[in-house]
Amino acid sequence: MSVLVVGSIALDTIKTPLEEHADLLGGSASYASVAASFFAPVNLVGIVGDDFPKEHVGLLKNRNIDLAGLQTVPGKTFRWSGEYMWDLNTRETRSIELNVFETFSPELPAAYRATPIVLLANIAPGLQHHVLDQIESPKFIIADTMDLWIDIAKPELVSLLARVDMLILNDGEARQLTEETSLIRAGKKIQAMGPKYVAIKKGEHGCLLFGEGEFFSCPAYPLEDIHDPTGAGDTFAGGLAGYLARNGGHVTFNTLRAAVVLGSVLASYNVEQFSLERLKTVTTDEISSRLERFRELSRFEAL
Amino acid sequence: MSVLVVGSIALDTIKTPLEEHADLLGGSASYASVAASFFAPVNLVGIVGDDFPKEHVGLLKNRNIDLAGLQTVPGKTFRWSGEYMWDLNTRETRSIELNVFETFSPELPAAYRATPIVLLANIAPGLQHHVLDQIESPKFIIADTMDLWIDIAKPELVSLLARVDMLILNDGEARQLTEETSLIRAGKKIQAMGPKYVAIKKGEHGCLLFGEGEFFSCPAYPLEDIHDPTGAGDTFAGGLAGYLARNGGHVTFNTLRAAVVLGSVLASYNVEQFSLERLKTVTTDEISSRLERFRELSRFEAL
Repeated sequence: MSVLVVGSIALDTIKTPLEEHADLLGGSASYASVAASFFAPVNLVGIVGDDFPKEHVGLLKNRNIDLAGLQTVPGKTFRWSGEYMWDLNTRETRSIELNVFETFSPELPAAYRATPIVLLANIAPGLQHHVLDQIESPKFIIADTMDLWIDIAKPELVSLLARVDMLILNDGEARQLTEETSLIRAGKKIQAMGPKYVAIKKGEHGCLLFGEGEFFSCPAYPLEDIHDPTGAGDTFAGGLAGYLARNGGHVTFNTLRAAVVLGSVLASYNVEQFSLERLKTVTTDEISSRLERFRELSRFEAL
Repeated sequence: MSVLVVGSIALDTIKTPLEEHADLLGGSASYASVAASFFAPVNLVGIVGDDFPKEHVGLLKNRNIDLAGLQTVPGKTFRWSGEYMWDLNTRETRSIELNVFETFSPELPAAYRATPIVLLANIAPGLQHHVLDQIESPKFIIADTMDLWIDIAKPELVSLLARVDMLILNDGEARQLTEETSLIRAGKKIQAMGPKYVAIKKGEHGCLLFGEGEFFSCPAYPLEDIHDPTGAGDTFAGGLAGYLARNGGHVTFNTLRAAVVLGSVLASYNVEQFSLERLKTVTTDEISSRLERFRELSRFEAL
């Protein structure tokens, strides 16, 4: 079963306290589609300019990602530049050049329209709506979002919530969207806005999953050295969506528990190197091994 | 097997955004000894003034806590007053009156000296050292601490670390003590300072346990309504120590995993009401039921 991934494709310039790299492959759809490709076939929808490096296209092709929905148009690819502070937890955007992304209208090739698992990676809620207008009989729709859209496009985001099965966002965004301090209340309030399931990402504190009156607390993998947090959330969402597709798209709370863990496994690898460098080399054995570590992290037996 | 609990006994005045109560039973030893008493016999060492209400002594007696080490001296009991901010996560101390606590020197009755499990609840590191000077062949020594002692008594705290098996502290304190941002690094750095095991409490994000090259991430119980966070950490430490005593004091990482969960179970009940009101009524069935909920919170099966 396939996953449709729609989002941004970018060339990132990223500065951390120790390193700086330019023109890296980035964007929500890049991370999410590569992550999903570990578990399922992926149909990608995005846009790049004619300056987009062939090697980046090669990376996506190597992951067997279907690129029929990748628009290449004259002009420059979307560029983002950001700097992480000393603790790698906070970042500042240094510059954004929308370039060809400014006129992006996600159009689904006919062959994509019946893709059963839909991941609306982080882009403007208006574009996410436009994707939903084109899909046919989806089994499960996941939306990711960010603080920017809560700030400048809240009505579109709120109306999107009524159309999706699951929302993924981070703790700060959940508090911002609901004006609740308690993440438990925030999660439930978002469920009441539409999505049956909500995942709240908490960075170094793991992830909370809400749904079906149940609750799952996924631990964070205990990493000592994070090199580049960029794309961790997109990788999480992509891995989660891919796992659901691999399991036939019949989504229960128990399937989602495992999907959240596998999304976390991939995200934990992703932050070990810049851009998608680590995802390029991750093996299925490595995924299995870290899955086992996640199990160890949270198991206990009371006597 | 018994637990020795040494710490403060206080009369607290607590203000939250919704309520204010005065002269409540409080102090690290009160919470910790009552929590420990759910699992094991407790020997308490503390000091109160002659104004200490009989009903509070009655509460401790009802929990079968041995009060041979409770000193009652002329004067007023230690008083603390604090106010919680709107989110109940941050608090300000409004006033402290040390009163009889100022001259407290914890003296162990002869019958207490061979207590196998020792919990040095949160008091000045100098007093914690004084307790260790009096104990005989302990099986396991746990110390709790707070930011104040890292600020004003760091050398005494650091030398204490070489004498204990386990340190319990919260995330901010772990960062303060080690000057590390990553809690994973902080935990390992504290282990290198002496204690074989370290528990870092993260409030709404649960707790991390380090030891024997292993790592355990305990989820937080998803509470929507917290009425009074006072004593949550002391309750956690007491429940943990009591559980170790109940299991014969043979401490392994696996025993500690369960001890951390049971400490968290008791702490999750404690914050549901002011002071020790909720701990007064918690039943063993309630403890079992929430233990089962903790298991549900973190279980997953990947297919």
